[in-house]
Amino acid sequence: MNKNPVNGMRDILPNEMKVRNYVLKLIRETYQSFGFTEIETPCVESIENLQGKNGGENEKLIFKVMKRGEKLNLETAKTENDLVDSGLRYDLTVPLSRYYSNHQADLPKPFKALQIGRVFRAERPQKGRFREFYQCDIDIFGDGTNLAETELILAMTTLLQKIGFKGYEIRINDRRILKAMASFSGLPETEYDEVFIALDKMDKIGLEGVTKELLALGMTESDTAAVLGFFEASGTKNGTEGLDALAGKLGEVLDPSVVSNMKEIFALVNAAKSEGFELIFDPTLVRGMGYYTGPIFEISVPQFGSSVGGGGRYDEMVKKFCGQETPACGFSVGFERIISILMDENFQVPDAPEKVAVLLEKGLSEEKKAAAFKDAQALRAEGKCVAIAMMAKNKKFQKDQLAADGYTDIREVYEREF
Amino acid sequence: MNKNPVNGMRDILPNEMKVRNYVLKLIRETYQSFGFTEIETPCVESIENLQGKNGGENEKLIFKVMKRGEKLNLETAKTENDLVDSGLRYDLTVPLSRYYSNHQADLPKPFKALQIGRVFRAERPQKGRFREFYQCDIDIFGDGTNLAETELILAMTTLLQKIGFKGYEIRINDRRILKAMASFSGLPETEYDEVFIALDKMDKIGLEGVTKELLALGMTESDTAAVLGFFEASGTKNGTEGLDALAGKLGEVLDPSVVSNMKEIFALVNAAKSEGFELIFDPTLVRGMGYYTGPIFEISVPQFGSSVGGGGRYDEMVKKFCGQETPACGFSVGFERIISILMDENFQVPDAPEKVAVLLEKGLSEEKKAAAFKDAQALRAEGKCVAIAMMAKNKKFQKDQLAADGYTDIREVYEREF
Repeated sequence: MNKNPVNGMRDILPNEMKVRNYVLKLIRETYQSFGFTEIETPCVESIENLQGKNGGENEKLIFKVMKRGEKLNLETAKTENDLVDSGLRYDLTVPLSRYYSNHQADLPKPFKALQIGRVFRAERPQKGRFREFYQCDIDIFGDGTNLAETELILAMTTLLQKIGFKGYEIRINDRRILKAMASFSGLPETEYDEVFIALDKMDKIGLEGVTKELLALGMTESDTAAVLGFFEASGTKNGTEGLDALAGKLGEVLDPSVVSNMKEIFALVNAAKSEGFELIFDPTLVRGMGYYTGPIFEISVPQFGSSVGGGGRYDEMVKKFCGQETPACGFSVGFERIISILMDENFQVPDAPEKVAVLLEKGLSEEKKAAAFKDAQALRAEGKCVAIAMMAKNKKFQKDQLAADGYTDIREVYEREF
Repeated sequence: MNKNPVNGMRDILPNEMKVRNYVLKLIRETYQSFGFTEIETPCVESIENLQGKNGGENEKLIFKVMKRGEKLNLETAKTENDLVDSGLRYDLTVPLSRYYSNHQADLPKPFKALQIGRVFRAERPQKGRFREFYQCDIDIFGDGTNLAETELILAMTTLLQKIGFKGYEIRINDRRILKAMASFSGLPETEYDEVFIALDKMDKIGLEGVTKELLALGMTESDTAAVLGFFEASGTKNGTEGLDALAGKLGEVLDPSVVSNMKEIFALVNAAKSEGFELIFDPTLVRGMGYYTGPIFEISVPQFGSSVGGGGRYDEMVKKFCGQETPACGFSVGFERIISILMDENFQVPDAPEKVAVLLEKGLSEEKKAAAFKDAQALRAEGKCVAIAMMAKNKKFQKDQLAADGYTDIREVYEREF
């Protein structure tokens, strides 16, 4: 038997678990205060849903689950997919869209969903990246207005404030602005997705790397220069001045309602937002998933050099399940990234209950033991955490261990009173 | 794309999710007040751990996960296991024993673990039985005394009291008593496990059915009669009188320390226990898993005709992972069964926050919208749940829906004040 977790997955130790549970409690409290309703979907989804082109690059990372019983036939199987009927989900968005399609008659409209759960990706194992991890998503179905984006941004920033994050940025863009830039540059629409995937790597491989990728896709040098020119020129500017400048350049190629919609999101968020973050228009923001159709956003925490969440509007996905047009907009908080930042900072969970240890002398009579259990039950009813254990031979070591584990009140019970 | 969950698994709707979250909160609070520390293990385990003979019948129900990349070779694969390297866990006990073996140097002694998580079994789908479900287990490693059994029983009964269960029974037996009865009847030790598996079906198939199964195993009619004689004779009796009577019959075959240990568990639990349940010695209790080595127990709720949890001592499992003798004792609460009972009773979660809905007139100015978001943020900071939505054309229907969803304060915001 193997005492290690499977390759790329991990056990959660008690100290980290406390921090995870604390953050999950804040997530539930905060999102529920915005009217989000928690739901759950299975970890296993049918293979056709997982391979339905909504997962982008993640579809290459599916853990596939084998057919069982008579359905499994090794001899006639020619391809992998002859052997599998399902797989582990790689995100919560595909299952949620299926869920909404299946249950919408029983759900309020608009439906504001909170989903917390494990997802699985067979990525090459590397530091800080695991093959099983938690995602925490909020999504709004059935609201095509920018109330949805505003609520999502306010909910997630309220959460980050409660966790204690400050000085971060929410970068926002719109898929339709990216498309307008691509169209203005003369690219054919069939190439947009590939171009966006290349642009999305700007952070990692820089302007030079992206230029190479675009040329490798078969783009001409002049098209490449035109697209990248927008990125160089607009840069990242506070407020909506950058948006106005870009809209001016793009002229009729960009629908003016996209600009006014974005400006209203800025106005509403800025009116109601807490301190601690800036909303920034960033035309270089792409986000990987091809399914986005409108505003997209991402949270950057400069001091940690990484994103702690992101999301956007994806109005076309539910239709693939049930044929019905359904506006949808969602945000996924980078739960594992947040936990790893808090663990690095040696974060202490506030308001933990007082911990009492009761050590029983070896050979204690049944009466004394019974009294100790009775006393412990009374302390527990008062909200204290009480652990009963036999006194170890090395009592000093035992007490040091308990103290290290947060036990501040250590009592000893002997047969004879002293 | 398929809008249904995979066969045998299920989506959790908002109403049930509220009850589940409420019970999970009670489970965490209660078990933590007994000094149990929450941990987590992956849903995926290596296939050799899952097939290591600790899963009993569940090992036939494993969802197997296919190898990936170069490791997967369809052409040379001869058996199922050539294609798989892992599977979905069917319980939390095997992963927890692996976890303890792996991390014991970093864990307190004794280690009191709480684990809550999804498990997976490819059972034939049927009403009320699902292929993915939650288990909530508490286990104590490194305590060979009956403090462990006592703490487990007190913890789970305190939990059931908080949930509101009354009038239930905790049936308790000891594997060593079962073994003594088998030995007294003259059975060879190699047949014990098969005989116990047959006896365990007494509830379902009755004395006649069990007799048939034992004869089918090749037992003689006289051995069968001898074993079943114990079951008929002892019956189920309150307190420990039944235990004394049985011990008298078995004589030297039963180690007297087994009897005194059981009696002390009765004394300690009865001294500290809450109202609402009876502890009952039941020599017909077997429990399915072959890994139990000492006391075993099960919770019966007569009015629901089923068990809502059970557990026992399994001192031999950790050794299989790390070679080191480690006493272990655990209890698993029947989470899904409890939820289904509460849902059938139309259980209402207490102390939910007040829900406020704010409906915005269509075409409302940016200023009015911004003010509404600002007001909502203030109410949320006060602990209320506030949802903002555009006013629907059919406002009455919208308000009825909100009321049905628990919104008791529905506000309307218009451009012109009335």
